[in-house]
Amino acid sequence: MTETTATDHPPALLPTLPGDFYTSASVFAAEQEQIFEATWCCAARSDELAEPGRFKNVQIGRESVLVVRGRDGVLRAFLNVCRHRGAALCTEPEGQVRRNLRCPYHAWTYALDGKLVAAPNLAALKEPTGEGIDRYRYGLIPVALTEWLGYAWVCLADEPPSFAEEVVGAVTHRLGDPTAIEHYGIEDLTVGRRVVYDVAANWKLIVENFMECYHCATIHPELTEVLPEFAKGLAAQYYVGHGAKFGSEISGFTIDGSAGFETLPGVTADQDRRYYAITVKPAVFVNLVPDHIIFHRMYPLAADRTVVECDWLYTPDVVAQGRDVSRSVELFHRVNEQDFAACERTQPAMSSRAYRHGGVLVPSEHHIAEFHEWVVSRVGPGDAR
Amino acid sequence: MTETTATDHPPALLPTLPGDFYTSASVFAAEQEQIFEATWCCAARSDELAEPGRFKNVQIGRESVLVVRGRDGVLRAFLNVCRHRGAALCTEPEGQVRRNLRCPYHAWTYALDGKLVAAPNLAALKEPTGEGIDRYRYGLIPVALTEWLGYAWVCLADEPPSFAEEVVGAVTHRLGDPTAIEHYGIEDLTVGRRVVYDVAANWKLIVENFMECYHCATIHPELTEVLPEFAKGLAAQYYVGHGAKFGSEISGFTIDGSAGFETLPGVTADQDRRYYAITVKPAVFVNLVPDHIIFHRMYPLAADRTVVECDWLYTPDVVAQGRDVSRSVELFHRVNEQDFAACERTQPAMSSRAYRHGGVLVPSEHHIAEFHEWVVSRVGPGDAR
Amino acid sequence: MTETTATDHPPALLPTLPGDFYTSASVFAAEQEQIFEATWCCAARSDELAEPGRFKNVQIGRESVLVVRGRDGVLRAFLNVCRHRGAALCTEPEGQVRRNLRCPYHAWTYALDGKLVAAPNLAALKEPTGEGIDRYRYGLIPVALTEWLGYAWVCLADEPPSFAEEVVGAVTHRLGDPTAIEHYGIEDLTVGRRVVYDVAANWKLIVENFMECYHCATIHPELTEVLPEFAKGLAAQYYVGHGAKFGSEISGFTIDGSAGFETLPGVTADQDRRYYAITVKPAVFVNLVPDHIIFHRMYPLAADRTVVECDWLYTPDVVAQGRDVSRSVELFHRVNEQDFAACERTQPAMSSRAYRHGGVLVPSEHHIAEFHEWVVSRVGPGDAR
Repeated sequence: MTETTATDHPPALLPTLPGDFYTSASVFAAEQEQIFEATWCCAARSDELAEPGRFKNVQIGRESVLVVRGRDGVLRAFLNVCRHRGAALCTEPEGQVRRNLRCPYHAWTYALDGKLVAAPNLAALKEPTGEGIDRYRYGLIPVALTEWLGYAWVCLADEPPSFAEEVVGAVTHRLGDPTAIEHYGIEDLTVGRRVVYDVAANWKLIVENFMECYHCATIHPELTEVLPEFAKGLAAQYYVGHGAKFGSEISGFTIDGSAGFETLPGVTADQDRRYYAITVKPAVFVNLVPDHIIFHRMYPLAADRTVVECDWLYTPDVVAQGRDVSRSVELFHRVNEQDFAACERTQPAMSSRAYRHGGVLVPSEHHIAEFHEWVVSRVGPGDAR
Repeated sequence: MTETTATDHPPALLPTLPGDFYTSASVFAAEQEQIFEATWCCAARSDELAEPGRFKNVQIGRESVLVVRGRDGVLRAFLNVCRHRGAALCTEPEGQVRRNLRCPYHAWTYALDGKLVAAPNLAALKEPTGEGIDRYRYGLIPVALTEWLGYAWVCLADEPPSFAEEVVGAVTHRLGDPTAIEHYGIEDLTVGRRVVYDVAANWKLIVENFMECYHCATIHPELTEVLPEFAKGLAAQYYVGHGAKFGSEISGFTIDGSAGFETLPGVTADQDRRYYAITVKPAVFVNLVPDHIIFHRMYPLAADRTVVECDWLYTPDVVAQGRDVSRSVELFHRVNEQDFAACERTQPAMSSRAYRHGGVLVPSEHHIAEFHEWVVSRVGPGDAR
Repeated sequence: MTETTATDHPPALLPTLPGDFYTSASVFAAEQEQIFEATWCCAARSDELAEPGRFKNVQIGRESVLVVRGRDGVLRAFLNVCRHRGAALCTEPEGQVRRNLRCPYHAWTYALDGKLVAAPNLAALKEPTGEGIDRYRYGLIPVALTEWLGYAWVCLADEPPSFAEEVVGAVTHRLGDPTAIEHYGIEDLTVGRRVVYDVAANWKLIVENFMECYHCATIHPELTEVLPEFAKGLAAQYYVGHGAKFGSEISGFTIDGSAGFETLPGVTADQDRRYYAITVKPAVFVNLVPDHIIFHRMYPLAADRTVVECDWLYTPDVVAQGRDVSRSVELFHRVNEQDFAACERTQPAMSSRAYRHGGVLVPSEHHIAEFHEWVVSRVGPGDAR
């Protein structure tokens, strides 16, 4: 893959989405229903839930989803709602139960596989037919769950789309090679740092920002120092398989270009000294560098508010030995802060008459139009039409 | 009345209301209009308004209602709105005026019976017919008021329903005897303690919670210690006329079962050492124990927020002598906190797909279904149908 | 002009607007669109923006408008939205740029006349026709601006109404003489004090309050001390050309009636020792007194929230010499606080059933009915019809 310039591309400006896509409560509700509650979303790091009974409470779309490790070692997900009168089973963001999930209101009690196993007077309860009640029919409502890259991905759809096509396929499509991601051994890494950002902007502004690098020269001085080609405005994900090269003076993907850690064992020579960025729609960004991974998950709370969780993943050795990750964390943390500030200053104008018909995409942003088409294909044409 | 067990009852599960009844702004607006602004609501303790000119400002449905004692000793209620340009006559929650209610904006002045008695240039003001204006037509807008049990009950309906049927009838229906409530002499008691709770839950969750005792064993250890039959899950109000018996070791309705005060003078032998709970729809709960009364009033502010005022009533002697009411207050205060916490953890799930068609009522909760039917009869079938 | 009494006027009560005009989100949206985004609004004091590149960010209707002084000395206004991807050009309330307005997201850069003058790869960007892009078509979107009385007035309408008719005409109509305002030389004065009030009331309640003086005797003791005729309830703006006379013991328009500053040079003998109040719809109030001007601008933020900025204007000498303006500021500052408190106690009743069909206007308030007709002519009959 050779570097190219924007002049290789059709130079005409393309329209963006109209402003109401970023502000309308009805568009946001449609996105929750048709995107976040219909596709695969990344819910938790699997090794946060190592022991049986360990659980995490995650907001997916408009639902509270409980991800819990079973006594059989299997990770499962359920709606966090008691089947009796609807109390939340767990209100803590995470925790540990011994054997069962017991509703603290009336003591209906569920096994870690969701089956209703106890309740006051349970033996006397009957189905309308007069038979004893079905312990699974009144068990917790399951949510589809798949583990990949060391994360638990869940899908609220009754019939989830193919994980291989939608999630694995997005990564393969970007890297051009189904095995490229495997070289990084992400499932074996450990979270060395997690930062949670509360961003006053629509989730799509954050996706669009991540997808293009036309802004890099303006707002990311540290990043363009490490990846000089970014100063030209082309994102790493602009070309299939392309990774941005480190500058010749740069030793590692750190705030000052100093050396990072040992290259991850499986990383190949052509992957070394390069940065790859991958967008997994709707809400995951993965950044690959030779010695660590930066993994973002977005949780949209309102048309103008999005929580972003960002994990920095290292080898278990790096973390166990307490080696100093702060210089590598600082680089992308600063990028995140720069990007989210830009998104926040963009959000207010989405309701302006100036943006009623949207803005424009320059040639190096043209691939964002595909993201816009995907959104429209799921939620329809918005309010303004 | 003998104690019975749940097995006397049809064992099948019944459905609850769908979740949207607890979250929808339009259902809540219909409830304000068809329930809280159409039925009798309890507004104030009469003896808080002993002297002429003493007033209290109460939110009933979506209206600010002024309850005020007249110079003739009569308690009256009015909408708290000046007829001229709409300023609130009183913005303080309670207070005292000397002779009249005077609007602080343009000085329109009303007698305590609502008549317009003064205004700048009043003599010059004319009806469109050219006659002097009608001092009652431009007087304060009256609200129906009835005193009972020492409380002022108000009704915003143009034609209020029968107080005898709707309020007194509810108590008689529960106790099975029209005179049973009179034995407690509630109108002669005094407020020994008032606690105001701000609950992040729909008002109906609080009613349903109060109506059943299936949760008592799980969340009310102190109450079930005093009333051992509650551990079986049947509410005191499950059977007409039934009051839950104190445990044999229990001396009084107090946090530690120690003795309370002297039994109220009129209480009969079969009422003694028993606890009776009464729901007066929509928003009053009365608890009778031998030596005091616990009286709850609910004021719904939003689909997910309800203010509850709870009075502990004792004989004037107990209060005047400064006797220590803290052990009896503590018992039901703790029950309140346990109940409201349960309601608050239930509210979020009301918007979950898991509760789209509601939950289920176990046999000992079946009487809640009548409450649900009453709600539907007033506000219709909700959003989801 | 002689003083008169209310009995000169038809005495019958007139109806006000119905309550929903003051609470409804849809009425408020219509007002934003048909009033505040369609008529001339006062945005900034011109001399705050003296140097080229000096800018101010003002909320007009629902838009963020940038008022900026050009290098040619001309004041212009633009929507504060980058034409590329919509970021706000300036988020500070005011500031200074050197030569251009540069978007901090992708560095699109605009001259102070709005022309797009630079952007990364700008030369390579093309219109769909293949031609280079039009630097004005992708320039900042202009907003009409006129300077008068030393203020910048802006209008978001595509075809602004006549400034001479709507703004200058309102002043002439009130004062009865097109030259009367000129005697005060307002454009040459300087801001000696600015106070910003955040009022929890609909903007129309504030206009109505300003238009009548029936409330003066009740809530403005200091003002009626200075202007004794106000105690009778007739506003200064009740009669064309009328200014309220200072009391015979009063030396100046100050909190204690003590002397103010020298009379403004152009003020005529019949204007001296008088107070004139002018309403320029929708949102400007001007008060003229012999030695200073009190100038209010309202910015409605919601149906129940309005920001009011009030300037006290003096000769440049008074300000430059640091003379003590506090006694003249204090008088109208106290009036403002009294008025806004009255408006805030009126707002809640606007949603009461008592105000469903509105209140009444007494004869000395009848001119408010014209304001109501003007509002209805712009936004239609409201929700309730």
